[in-house]
Amino acid sequence: MISQATIDRLPLYFRTLRLVEDEKIPIISSDELGRRLDITPEQIRKDLATFGQFGRKGIGYDVRELKEKLANILGLQNNWRLAIVGVGHLGGALANYVNFASLGFSVVALLDINKNLIGTKVNDIPVNNVANMKSVIRKYNVDIGVITVPADEAQGVADLLVAAGIKGIWNFAPTKLSVPAEIPLVNEDLSIGLSALSYYMSQDLTEVY
Amino acid sequence: MISQATIDRLPLYFRTLRLVEDEKIPIISSDELGRRLDITPEQIRKDLATFGQFGRKGIGYDVRELKEKLANILGLQNNWRLAIVGVGHLGGALANYVNFASLGFSVVALLDINKNLIGTKVNDIPVNNVANMKSVIRKYNVDIGVITVPADEAQGVADLLVAAGIKGIWNFAPTKLSVPAEIPLVNEDLSIGLSALSYYMSQDLTEVY
Repeated sequence: MISQATIDRLPLYFRTLRLVEDEKIPIISSDELGRRLDITPEQIRKDLATFGQFGRKGIGYDVRELKEKLANILGLQNNWRLAIVGVGHLGGALANYVNFASLGFSVVALLDINKNLIGTKVNDIPVNNVANMKSVIRKYNVDIGVITVPADEAQGVADLLVAAGIKGIWNFAPTKLSVPAEIPLVNEDLSIGLSALSYYMSQDLTEVY
Repeated sequence: MISQATIDRLPLYFRTLRLVEDEKIPIISSDELGRRLDITPEQIRKDLATFGQFGRKGIGYDVRELKEKLANILGLQNNWRLAIVGVGHLGGALANYVNFASLGFSVVALLDINKNLIGTKVNDIPVNNVANMKSVIRKYNVDIGVITVPADEAQGVADLLVAAGIKGIWNFAPTKLSVPAEIPLVNEDLSIGLSALSYYMSQDLTEVY
């Protein structure tokens, strides 16, 4: 059983290794990886050991090998194709978010119910009518549905995505969705990071006063 | 030492307890809380036990008491005031994100270097000139700086925020920032949740084929 926290650190390792590879560095130690990421070398060694034997004691990790292994573990080699449903502020921001491409994800379709948006483009991606969900998902070979509609519309959108044959759902609407057990669902809540910051800021205050 | 994963679950508990309180339910069991959140009752009891003795065996948690205790642990009673630096797609989305208000956070100021944006309003919040950072942070009593500028501008913005006396930084730019140790910094990376989804989708494929 791999912890969520470990899974969440893998893309950080992957992205750093790709930068290291760009710098033509063939071998990296857990100390140097830790320094670049602000994560302890012990944590990095423990995380990577979960997936097998990597690196050589006293030498380090083969950068390209570890990078490719991580890409495989994370499934990044699938180059997943995303459709964003709900082209409001958040949907528009995600359509323009550059970090996705750096991990092999691409946003290939946008959907909305707003007649004024349908037919326009955001970041060169066409906005389609939600009513055509099934044909859009097929036409653009969409793997992942991203839900950025208001909470009370989210379940309806999830049902449409599932009916259209989506393989996974990334939900930003602040509501609990019901989807078939075989469809992986990740809920994103931007206020969690902010609450963590509030927690750390409060701890500081406690220490000071 | 409280784990990051536990801290990340606390706002979910808090938000659910507030909904439960709105439903006039005075006592809730870890089973019911777990059902509403899709988290095991054992996990919930373990998380809450980290912070002391709550609830009564076989009866449950006092909803209002637990909610207030969690707000205190998370520092939400501070009603932190946010300034967003960089009013692009993501900054605009955050300025409109309703979940923050539900946890007591408020966005009180926006800053940008774009002359076309300065003086306009987004979600009724005025856009100020980054050059006036110090006076804006003081005028609006800003606690938290939110960085949504491109990676190569992020460190400069962080330095301005620190010089202006900010208490905490929430960074969305895909770069590692240097700030004084006494300023809590939380880095947000939207592609982490997406990578986790990719991981689960790949695991499913492995099982199927």
